[in-house]
Amino acid sequence: MSDPQRVAVVGATGYAGFELAQLLLRHPKIQKPTFYLRESSAHVKCLTELFPRLRGWGEAPCKTFSVDAVAASGAGMVFLATPHESSLETVPQLLNAGLRVVDLSGAFRFHDPKTFAHWYKLPEPPKNLAEEAVYGLPELYADQLPGARLVANPGCYPTSVILGLRPLVKSGWIALERGIVADCKSGASGAGKEPKRELHFVEVDENLRAYGLFSHRHTPEVTDHTGIADEDIVFTTHLLPVARGILSTMYVWFAEPHTAEEVESLYRVFYADRPMMRIWPAGKLPELQHVAYTNFCDIGFALDPTGRRLVVVSCLDNLGKGAAGQAVQNMNLMMGIEEGTGLR
Amino acid sequence: MSDPQRVAVVGATGYAGFELAQLLLRHPKIQKPTFYLRESSAHVKCLTELFPRLRGWGEAPCKTFSVDAVAASGAGMVFLATPHESSLETVPQLLNAGLRVVDLSGAFRFHDPKTFAHWYKLPEPPKNLAEEAVYGLPELYADQLPGARLVANPGCYPTSVILGLRPLVKSGWIALERGIVADCKSGASGAGKEPKRELHFVEVDENLRAYGLFSHRHTPEVTDHTGIADEDIVFTTHLLPVARGILSTMYVWFAEPHTAEEVESLYRVFYADRPMMRIWPAGKLPELQHVAYTNFCDIGFALDPTGRRLVVVSCLDNLGKGAAGQAVQNMNLMMGIEEGTGLR
Amino acid sequence: MSDPQRVAVVGATGYAGFELAQLLLRHPKIQKPTFYLRESSAHVKCLTELFPRLRGWGEAPCKTFSVDAVAASGAGMVFLATPHESSLETVPQLLNAGLRVVDLSGAFRFHDPKTFAHWYKLPEPPKNLAEEAVYGLPELYADQLPGARLVANPGCYPTSVILGLRPLVKSGWIALERGIVADCKSGASGAGKEPKRELHFVEVDENLRAYGLFSHRHTPEVTDHTGIADEDIVFTTHLLPVARGILSTMYVWFAEPHTAEEVESLYRVFYADRPMMRIWPAGKLPELQHVAYTNFCDIGFALDPTGRRLVVVSCLDNLGKGAAGQAVQNMNLMMGIEEGTGLR
Amino acid sequence: MSDPQRVAVVGATGYAGFELAQLLLRHPKIQKPTFYLRESSAHVKCLTELFPRLRGWGEAPCKTFSVDAVAASGAGMVFLATPHESSLETVPQLLNAGLRVVDLSGAFRFHDPKTFAHWYKLPEPPKNLAEEAVYGLPELYADQLPGARLVANPGCYPTSVILGLRPLVKSGWIALERGIVADCKSGASGAGKEPKRELHFVEVDENLRAYGLFSHRHTPEVTDHTGIADEDIVFTTHLLPVARGILSTMYVWFAEPHTAEEVESLYRVFYADRPMMRIWPAGKLPELQHVAYTNFCDIGFALDPTGRRLVVVSCLDNLGKGAAGQAVQNMNLMMGIEEGTGLR
Repeated sequence: MSDPQRVAVVGATGYAGFELAQLLLRHPKIQKPTFYLRESSAHVKCLTELFPRLRGWGEAPCKTFSVDAVAASGAGMVFLATPHESSLETVPQLLNAGLRVVDLSGAFRFHDPKTFAHWYKLPEPPKNLAEEAVYGLPELYADQLPGARLVANPGCYPTSVILGLRPLVKSGWIALERGIVADCKSGASGAGKEPKRELHFVEVDENLRAYGLFSHRHTPEVTDHTGIADEDIVFTTHLLPVARGILSTMYVWFAEPHTAEEVESLYRVFYADRPMMRIWPAGKLPELQHVAYTNFCDIGFALDPTGRRLVVVSCLDNLGKGAAGQAVQNMNLMMGIEEGTGLR
Repeated sequence: MSDPQRVAVVGATGYAGFELAQLLLRHPKIQKPTFYLRESSAHVKCLTELFPRLRGWGEAPCKTFSVDAVAASGAGMVFLATPHESSLETVPQLLNAGLRVVDLSGAFRFHDPKTFAHWYKLPEPPKNLAEEAVYGLPELYADQLPGARLVANPGCYPTSVILGLRPLVKSGWIALERGIVADCKSGASGAGKEPKRELHFVEVDENLRAYGLFSHRHTPEVTDHTGIADEDIVFTTHLLPVARGILSTMYVWFAEPHTAEEVESLYRVFYADRPMMRIWPAGKLPELQHVAYTNFCDIGFALDPTGRRLVVVSCLDNLGKGAAGQAVQNMNLMMGIEEGTGLR
Repeated sequence: MSDPQRVAVVGATGYAGFELAQLLLRHPKIQKPTFYLRESSAHVKCLTELFPRLRGWGEAPCKTFSVDAVAASGAGMVFLATPHESSLETVPQLLNAGLRVVDLSGAFRFHDPKTFAHWYKLPEPPKNLAEEAVYGLPELYADQLPGARLVANPGCYPTSVILGLRPLVKSGWIALERGIVADCKSGASGAGKEPKRELHFVEVDENLRAYGLFSHRHTPEVTDHTGIADEDIVFTTHLLPVARGILSTMYVWFAEPHTAEEVESLYRVFYADRPMMRIWPAGKLPELQHVAYTNFCDIGFALDPTGRRLVVVSCLDNLGKGAAGQAVQNMNLMMGIEEGTGLR
Repeated sequence: MSDPQRVAVVGATGYAGFELAQLLLRHPKIQKPTFYLRESSAHVKCLTELFPRLRGWGEAPCKTFSVDAVAASGAGMVFLATPHESSLETVPQLLNAGLRVVDLSGAFRFHDPKTFAHWYKLPEPPKNLAEEAVYGLPELYADQLPGARLVANPGCYPTSVILGLRPLVKSGWIALERGIVADCKSGASGAGKEPKRELHFVEVDENLRAYGLFSHRHTPEVTDHTGIADEDIVFTTHLLPVARGILSTMYVWFAEPHTAEEVESLYRVFYADRPMMRIWPAGKLPELQHVAYTNFCDIGFALDPTGRRLVVVSCLDNLGKGAAGQAVQNMNLMMGIEEGTGLR
């Protein structure tokens, strides 16, 4: 019989997968996880062979992945740190085998299967599962997590943008007709571990470049969960010469003037019970270094003297709150454990 | 008697001053400059003592600065790489002594003396000189440079933003009422050489932070020379973990749809005879590395499929086109030398 | 009455102090520490004011330092993350007040008070305390820690060099007459937080420089604890463009040929019971990234085909095993807690 | 008929090739070169398509490479920035076609063809050409360059080590029986442009690693041209998180004491007429930043108070003096042009 507190991890070979392994191996409330790798990594018997950093932390046994193997392992929950195509295929099988799934890919992030197919140029996910999947952003959807069978772990950029903009959109203060800008900057681990020309050290070091303008796959997550129409927002992404972290600078015009106190209060009330949010006092701004290697999302802002133009800065670690940390936060809520357990 | 092709440099101890020294020492059309340092650096006899990189390039003799010493040197033109206060004081004296001046400080960048006093918290410059000074952005004001006595070399951020936005503003295509955003990112050499807590390697490395929101001194240069009202633009600055370079991402909404061809053509026509501008074909974007250690300003853009939302990316080297290189470009035009001489 | 498991921290304003704060705040076996700052920081009521990263981790109350205040606090042990001069003065007072002390400064690292005075150009420490102090390198002196009143926490470079060389020296395999080289490279946090010209981001970024040749203060620690005479070793230090980490490359000639198996076995046996040492299999080498943000010291080596020339690579985090982590490891052993508690 | 001042470049697609292109396009004494690319790059008509940085510098036409095409072009000299295998094959053909060749690969760097075959695991080069080839290190072999048909451009590490050690070896001061250490550190551009896991930004950033111990292909260049036997030197290489530059720290024991004046004088006399060498005064050391983007090799040293232990620091830009700049320096001497032309 399966143990609900026992977890399996599939595909922990990339940066987010490694981060997830580190977090789960240290988590105080769950047993040591089992790691499942693809056939091509069948020679790997312990995760420390792939990640020498992990040596000395205890065992991290690896097995070859199959749905049957995971189902037979006694795990009640499985994390998928696998490519989109792969998650598309295995999620239904794992659910059928009675497992709960936290999927770090993009496959089940959209309620409308067509959205995924359009932006990812891949087949549509099953309609019923796309509709059932909970978008795993606990600050907005915590109440849906305890009962969830399938959680789609959000993208890193959308996490930072949605957490920065959602309270403002909900407030009704924004002059939406003026448009909103989200200018996002990410470290290179967000681009994955696969060697590519544009990720060579020499191409990223001492450089900055914008990419994916008007075509980034994270766009529909942003519009779906902020509630801003696509034509009213411009969302851009830049590659920073740092390993970890996302800083999003967001620009909003107010219809009527507001005070800094009102803005700060808006965020504090909205995120009152959310332990992973840190709201900065008016006039102070978070920086990448404040959140690197943490699961926090920090939000600060600057308001112009007329109270009409607002700049919001949202920071997080793309591998932490933007991926693996958030997956663990989702797991905690799914299991009824305190949200920030193992994440401080 | 003074030689119009002979130049002096005052204050070449910071990053921009050093860059200027390098450019002038290699310039094919002028004599080797003389360098003037403050009393406190009177022991320095050759610039190579301050900058070992310069060894082997030939002599770079240093003298103690005084207006009389510069006037007696036979130089016809002087560069000031000195603090704002210092330029405020010496510019009138140097002009009186018959020298032409290129001032790299902010002291004479505004036609209205009150603008300077307000943003820099310093005394007003003399009204007649503030009005006489040419804003040394050759791509906009080349025709005023040959006869100029006093050239105020622009700030690094404004150079990148003005060159990116001015053609658009002039076109009349922008829906100004929607507002414009200029999200700028700069390397740390732009913050000066003075040791400060926030410029310590450990504080900048693997970090990104926004600063100076709604209060950056470069703001009035941007509004003056783009022609955009302060309330219609948000201009922000970020500190990047790189030594050199500025990348500005600018966001504009069009009143009516336009095509990428129209946008590209707008820039190409506007900068048709300007050798230091490189316009990128639609869909390709410049990066910091393309312009580092050059005097080019690169401009690229992305237009959304509806032809309404435009993102412009403008890149330059903050010590090159953003400071010392631009000063040399101004000198070339003031002396009747081809604009890009010594800058390729 | 004092509680032996209760600790105070004096001077947690630098990089090592901050690291120490993070480790102690998360340590599972001790109470939350109290932080004592100098008069000049009397306005700081919580460490999060100095280190915004710490927000959300719980309280970290700060008080103004005095020996009496610490003595009255009920703490049984105190960490000093203070300047050498300061530790020289307060260590005797704190011991007199009945506290046990872990001193992160260099003041009590040498049994001969003259060694300190000579290398640090400061007064000699009291002879009896210099002789009593335990050099806090648990891998060599674990048995002296449980009863220690005063522990001198080692320097970061010496920790990496001593741990790499001591097993070899003890083996008697080295041809000492050929000389030994320790070429060490450190990240910039090792140079302290004080702003200095040579630590400006622009001066460290994309740079590497050797410094302190034949004059580095860590030299006598290396010779004292490896047992190598000063004239038989050259110990050099370089500043790397990274925030954290030390990698020491050490060169040794053997008197007689040895095999890789013998060398690996030598290290494995020497460090058999030491949980913070990770010995790498022959032919594989540790890297800075493997140890950053950990308390491990990783050791690997390469032996030439003749079995005569050996290169040893020793890596650690200069703020972890090289400073704050080692201090906590010492505390654990002093308190009878498992050595690696709170450090994995 | 061929023009001796006209040059062709084959294979300018990597980092050294690009650097070479930049230098030749700006060289004041030669015509604009023609660039020849492999079949697979036949679509590239201008080098600016591969390297956007080059835009605005003038034309850099590209053609498809064949020996016949180069021979028919009228060029008298050809640079090969091609893989070792490729140079092995084309060098004899190009020489037969009457061209002079500067080869940046390792194929002709060793007088004994077996040395190349052994270290590079490739076929032996023709014996007569291996013997005829001049090792293109002008500071040692300038007199052989004017008449050379084939110049083998040295490796980057050997250039820094040989220039640092050769004067000492020749002096006879070294106690060779004690052994010599050359601990070298290089930026990532030295590892080539091909995407590889270990060159991904995230793997190099904030990291340092030793590699190629006792097996680096540059070893036999070091021993051949310093005159030190393989068993008396340990040569190691490390990968730095910087784009450009090599810093080699070399350790030597003297048989008899010497003074700093003697050491400085030894270097000054040895390199008296060599414009690309910069010897530092005793006690001051060169840094990577001093030589980045230059063709200089800087040498400094520290001598211990007993005059017996010497540390030499040698710095250069691995793409400049370590590759493309040195190739141009060789070209200058082959053509009878002043050695440093186009390199300052």
